[in-house]
Amino acid sequence: MENSVNPLISNLQRRVCLTPEEIDLIGSKVTLRVLKRKDFLLYKGDTCKHFNYVASGCLRVYGMDDDGFVHINYFAPEDWWAADIKSFFQQTPSRYYIDALEDTLILQLKNQDFNKLLEAVPKLEKWLRVLLQNALITAEDRVSTDLSMHAEERYQEFLNCYPYLEKRVSQKQIASFLGITPEFFSMLKKKRKHLK
Amino acid sequence: MENSVNPLISNLQRRVCLTPEEIDLIGSKVTLRVLKRKDFLLYKGDTCKHFNYVASGCLRVYGMDDDGFVHINYFAPEDWWAADIKSFFQQTPSRYYIDALEDTLILQLKNQDFNKLLEAVPKLEKWLRVLLQNALITAEDRVSTDLSMHAEERYQEFLNCYPYLEKRVSQKQIASFLGITPEFFSMLKKKRKHLK
Repeated sequence: MENSVNPLISNLQRRVCLTPEEIDLIGSKVTLRVLKRKDFLLYKGDTCKHFNYVASGCLRVYGMDDDGFVHINYFAPEDWWAADIKSFFQQTPSRYYIDALEDTLILQLKNQDFNKLLEAVPKLEKWLRVLLQNALITAEDRVSTDLSMHAEERYQEFLNCYPYLEKRVSQKQIASFLGITPEFFSMLKKKRKHLK
Repeated sequence: MENSVNPLISNLQRRVCLTPEEIDLIGSKVTLRVLKRKDFLLYKGDTCKHFNYVASGCLRVYGMDDDGFVHINYFAPEDWWAADIKSFFQQTPSRYYIDALEDTLILQLKNQDFNKLLEAVPKLEKWLRVLLQNALITAEDRVSTDLSMHAEERYQEFLNCYPYLEKRVSQKQIASFLGITPEFFSMLKKKRKHLK
């Protein structure tokens, strides 16, 4: 278990400097969970009880409208965190589904433990602040992108944001992330190939 | 000056407990700025150098697409903070315009001072974390709302979020925030009146 917590600790240490005692304390609260491809980690309507660090594999965080249209908020491959922030911090029903696009290993922190850790190790506030700050910037960019960019530019943004994910995630998933049909996405890719 | 900083300090104290020395230090970094209605605080493309607290009046934070279509990110009335987060924290060109919808008094913290305050008073990290967390939740909700809700429900959400703003902001501004035409918004309001 000790070794398996290392990537999560490294992730935190990129932003804050932790003592061995703090590392032990954090490590003692982490639980490991294995998801098979297509397993659900969270259903819309359920309460998001964990803050999830992806050690390997890839999660998908998405909403669904009344017409059954899937809108992908973000992918969470290795070294990303995934949760419904609102549901997690307010302990209210989740707005999103989270499922695994590949076999995935996650390290979880329970809501109560997470809050206690923030009190016991206040410097984690900085780590969390920067994480949320970056998530907010991405969410704002996506609103602007959806509004003002053409599908082709959005695709380029996707490649910039997830440079290693294109080969791992299905064409259908990427089309859904971009908010276009798989057919239109296929045309768009052909056109790019032709222009290269 | 001392008194005029009070609302900003109260805003911080709602989340963290500050000593008199810390309050003095923060107060010493705050500058006051008066904006007339329609004055710009920030132009798209300029760097956002200040984190702005609205003491009175109302700001509007918005983007504009290539076709000149205005998309309002949020209104910032009294006791709200306003900035282009990405531009402010990364010191890159702003994605948004910020202007005043009414005569507005703001209290500003310069980027360098803001970062120094976070180091000198680390508990401010918690205040900022919760601020960004709430902003992220709102941004995520707006994406879902835009996607899955009808204009009428979006209008109800606007009323919930800004219960006191409807009489102060023009019908055109609200329509722009909802992403509908002023004509359609006018129809929608008539329909609601009729149903009451």
